[in-house]
Amino acid sequence: MSEQRTEIATLGEFGLIEHLTKNIELQNVSSVLGVGDDAAVIDHFGKQTVITSDLLVEGVHFDLMYTPLKHLGYKSVVVNLSDVYAMNATPTQIILGLGLSNRFSVEALEEFYEGVYAACTKYGVDLVGGDTVSSQKGFIISVTAVGEVAPDKFVRRSTARQGDLLCCSGDLGAAYLGLVFLEREKKIYLESPGVRPDLEGEKYVIGRLLKPEARKDIIEFFETASLLPTAMMDISDGLSSEILHISKDSGLGTVLYEEKIPIDEQTRMAAFKFELDPTACALSGGEDYELLFTIRQEDHDKILLNEQISVIGYMTAPEKGNKIITKGGSTFDITAQGWNAFGA
Amino acid sequence: MSEQRTEIATLGEFGLIEHLTKNIELQNVSSVLGVGDDAAVIDHFGKQTVITSDLLVEGVHFDLMYTPLKHLGYKSVVVNLSDVYAMNATPTQIILGLGLSNRFSVEALEEFYEGVYAACTKYGVDLVGGDTVSSQKGFIISVTAVGEVAPDKFVRRSTARQGDLLCCSGDLGAAYLGLVFLEREKKIYLESPGVRPDLEGEKYVIGRLLKPEARKDIIEFFETASLLPTAMMDISDGLSSEILHISKDSGLGTVLYEEKIPIDEQTRMAAFKFELDPTACALSGGEDYELLFTIRQEDHDKILLNEQISVIGYMTAPEKGNKIITKGGSTFDITAQGWNAFGA
Repeated sequence: MSEQRTEIATLGEFGLIEHLTKNIELQNVSSVLGVGDDAAVIDHFGKQTVITSDLLVEGVHFDLMYTPLKHLGYKSVVVNLSDVYAMNATPTQIILGLGLSNRFSVEALEEFYEGVYAACTKYGVDLVGGDTVSSQKGFIISVTAVGEVAPDKFVRRSTARQGDLLCCSGDLGAAYLGLVFLEREKKIYLESPGVRPDLEGEKYVIGRLLKPEARKDIIEFFETASLLPTAMMDISDGLSSEILHISKDSGLGTVLYEEKIPIDEQTRMAAFKFELDPTACALSGGEDYELLFTIRQEDHDKILLNEQISVIGYMTAPEKGNKIITKGGSTFDITAQGWNAFGA
Repeated sequence: MSEQRTEIATLGEFGLIEHLTKNIELQNVSSVLGVGDDAAVIDHFGKQTVITSDLLVEGVHFDLMYTPLKHLGYKSVVVNLSDVYAMNATPTQIILGLGLSNRFSVEALEEFYEGVYAACTKYGVDLVGGDTVSSQKGFIISVTAVGEVAPDKFVRRSTARQGDLLCCSGDLGAAYLGLVFLEREKKIYLESPGVRPDLEGEKYVIGRLLKPEARKDIIEFFETASLLPTAMMDISDGLSSEILHISKDSGLGTVLYEEKIPIDEQTRMAAFKFELDPTACALSGGEDYELLFTIRQEDHDKILLNEQISVIGYMTAPEKGNKIITKGGSTFDITAQGWNAFGA
């Protein structure tokens, strides 16, 4: 953060918004009217509009002690874009609402916006509106993401079919271990402020927590491969909780193979260091922002060569419930918290 | 509020959303997919999509000591719809994000949602998504409103032309006096909890503050009268501040006649009671959610018979500045705070 500190009051609410948004260049033809009026105007030219909104609250969703503001700006955008991709849609615009206490300087806010704009550039979305208000305590971030999808090409959670393959993108569990690590370092720091944390070994898991990416590439791959998943959602709360959403909403059961769950080697090493089970981290950790989706068995060939996609199980009849088959060959019930060793 | 108190934790986050949204019946064909997936899907069938978002924070935007939760739910929706109408568009959907501390019971939240649904029904919009999260302190409300408008029929703030008539809907200043009254009653109550406030004489101004309406009727009138304002915005921050927006964004000056500013008789009486100038309340009060707009002089006949519309001034060349001509015939500069007696 820069040494300079400019009080927000010196700019005023309108001056502040103007200051932070003056360099916006709209990238999408669908962005008919951006920041600066009562509302933004979007024209998706015959496509359907996808819209989602998230609220992030300091102390609940993020800790400014170890979250750089630029990363936070980036992540606030990305987690919303992830919801748009999870509909098989392309994000086109975002609207940003911020609640700020007077603890924030203009410079701090500029840093946050740097991250917002970096995400906008990377994912090709336009910031088209916003609202900046006071908050008595804590930093509040509200992001609304808008996207487009060809009529009826959006993919719901509730439309998986029996026999479909259950797939996920990337790897899981890392963000949770990043959180465990940073929370531990925070505790150490608060007890002995002189000690500098050694982040070297945990770069990957920390990066996954602080600067997640949305799986734009997977949605583009579906398009290229002419593959339409039968159901899809993003993994924000942990694999097990999301599997239960898809199976419940689709009226089905699931079989999940523990050995098929993609976990990065660095995640495994971090888990062992903290004496945690890597599979449990993947199942209940959350914040990975990978995609969980189902495809028809006959589409299996289409994903074979994509190393970013793992088949982790399949959908069964509802009466079979939601089961995980462990590496040791045991079968347990999947619960929102991971698995239930007493349920099977 | 009901006597029963159900802790939110007993339902869980997903249970809570399900509980509060289970009775939604979508009213608009444009609502392709509503609550319950990663995002909502909207099809405006060739129309343009208008989108706006607001963040409301307890202690900054509302005081739960004198704001009934049902009214708060209603108002949270209405203030966003007002932004959509201010684009000359028709609102069609809303998305609601709530940050809740554990002080809130399920019953309290139901009351809030009652107001939300009442506004949705009255204005014909669908609640299509949302996010409910924890907040460490205070109630946080994020509303995103979506609307539709025929291509390029939206009305900006920046397109007023020299000579255009400056108009506003309804009457101004009442909401501010409602606030002054309730703040005074709160102070009295905190000092002497036994004293019951007498709200009889201030029903109108209190109603304008706690349960404002958006000017759907004016937008419908424009359509019927084949009238397209040249510029428009809603009056949320006070008349003078909004006039400065339109004149600055349009690169013009303004002449405003004090005697033309519409102020209800009950507002005048409340102002005198508190020894406030009714005109100052209208100029700087805010929260009236009336529409401020400009029309071509040749369209004057079209508004003559509409008693809900007042012509309050006209747009001049930019070098003439923004002036108010008082009842006494003096001319002053309009400032964001009202007027500047030293400026002219």
